[in-house]
Amino acid sequence: MLRITEIFGPTIQGEGAVIGAPTVFVRAGGCDYRCSWCDSLHAVDTEHRHTWAKMDSADVFAEVERLSGGTPLTVSLSGGNPAIQDFSDVIALGKSKGYDFALETQGSIAREWFSELAPLILSPKPPSSGHVVDWDKFDACVKAAGEAETVLKIVIFDDTDYAWAKDAAARYPQLPLYIQPGNHTPPSADEDDAAVDMDGIMDRYEWLIDKTLADKWYSPKILPQLHVLIWGNKRGV
Amino acid sequence: MLRITEIFGPTIQGEGAVIGAPTVFVRAGGCDYRCSWCDSLHAVDTEHRHTWAKMDSADVFAEVERLSGGTPLTVSLSGGNPAIQDFSDVIALGKSKGYDFALETQGSIAREWFSELAPLILSPKPPSSGHVVDWDKFDACVKAAGEAETVLKIVIFDDTDYAWAKDAAARYPQLPLYIQPGNHTPPSADEDDAAVDMDGIMDRYEWLIDKTLADKWYSPKILPQLHVLIWGNKRGV
Repeated sequence: MLRITEIFGPTIQGEGAVIGAPTVFVRAGGCDYRCSWCDSLHAVDTEHRHTWAKMDSADVFAEVERLSGGTPLTVSLSGGNPAIQDFSDVIALGKSKGYDFALETQGSIAREWFSELAPLILSPKPPSSGHVVDWDKFDACVKAAGEAETVLKIVIFDDTDYAWAKDAAARYPQLPLYIQPGNHTPPSADEDDAAVDMDGIMDRYEWLIDKTLADKWYSPKILPQLHVLIWGNKRGV
Repeated sequence: MLRITEIFGPTIQGEGAVIGAPTVFVRAGGCDYRCSWCDSLHAVDTEHRHTWAKMDSADVFAEVERLSGGTPLTVSLSGGNPAIQDFSDVIALGKSKGYDFALETQGSIAREWFSELAPLILSPKPPSSGHVVDWDKFDACVKAAGEAETVLKIVIFDDTDYAWAKDAAARYPQLPLYIQPGNHTPPSADEDDAAVDMDGIMDRYEWLIDKTLADKWYSPKILPQLHVLIWGNKRGV
């Protein structure tokens, strides 16, 4: 059985490699990290474990199929860390019906079925998260993906994160790179539509653009979180 | 000699296939169209022709190189319609130094050197523009690109444009597709920082997302114009 925090959509993917793409989100419950600025605490905080549904793979895909009206699209496997659980059956079921699967993870747990993803989005967490990346485990994730499209996405909150992101990206020059400012006003685990500092979010996006360009670091795409710009911290959109 | 309206950057590409990518813009002067809602009239309106610089290809690339500090990036050839003029020497010069070139055009004039682009962005204009697409000429552009990455980008202002965009996209199922709402408050040719209706722009973006998803049209990526969200109608950013 899979622990699922929420399944919602269709909406658009708000960030990273498939920004703007129609998608249904499957948010897995549980995480081996607890980032200081986590924007999905309701899928991480074990106090909220009782709100997560237990579903088998067929039930999960049936809900995706219902929400998408049976028309294939790219499903976004998110969390929490979806790599904690085994999504191979959900992916196999969906692919047999023409659906694609993107998955985002911090890269702490490698899975053989990463090779079935399109794309695998590896998001190593910068110093501001409070975590330290285990690069051996991260490398294992890159290796597990094999020929599957794999991209890097790094959230940046401050100058220290920026410098760290440049070093982290330099380890994987072959991977397309996306950087984005973090939401410094994330919702608590209990809030469905928490206030967001939109001016501050735009200021931080402009700060990241200016800093990156002044530094002549031209390899990353510098993107905002579109869903935050449209819907703030509202959940389920 | 090339007629150039402006060369500016580095900034980010605000829309379409390379959204978020650091870029220097080369905005060519002159256009065979005059869309009702054109947001770059200073590069289109022949009354402003006296403000366009005459530059040879070496001068154009030298300015790109100066602005980018000599570090290669993707150059965005824009306009007006940049396909009116011959950018093959600028492209050859830049590619010899590691630069890539993206070009956006309405697809009314095919050029052999489209095959050198990465990517060629074809943006057929919907009914609200006041123009009617000549699909034979458009097909010639797709053919000229050959193996070069080619994408479709369609601006949508209303329900009529939306229906038209679906038909237009259906002609090219093999091309990646990007749709975006138009800026209904474009600047006049004389304004460097005209007022913009930001609330209306966000409302139109949400309208396009809702309409496309409700229609189960999942193939396009639905994107805003990031530069408008950040800088409004300010020119040269």
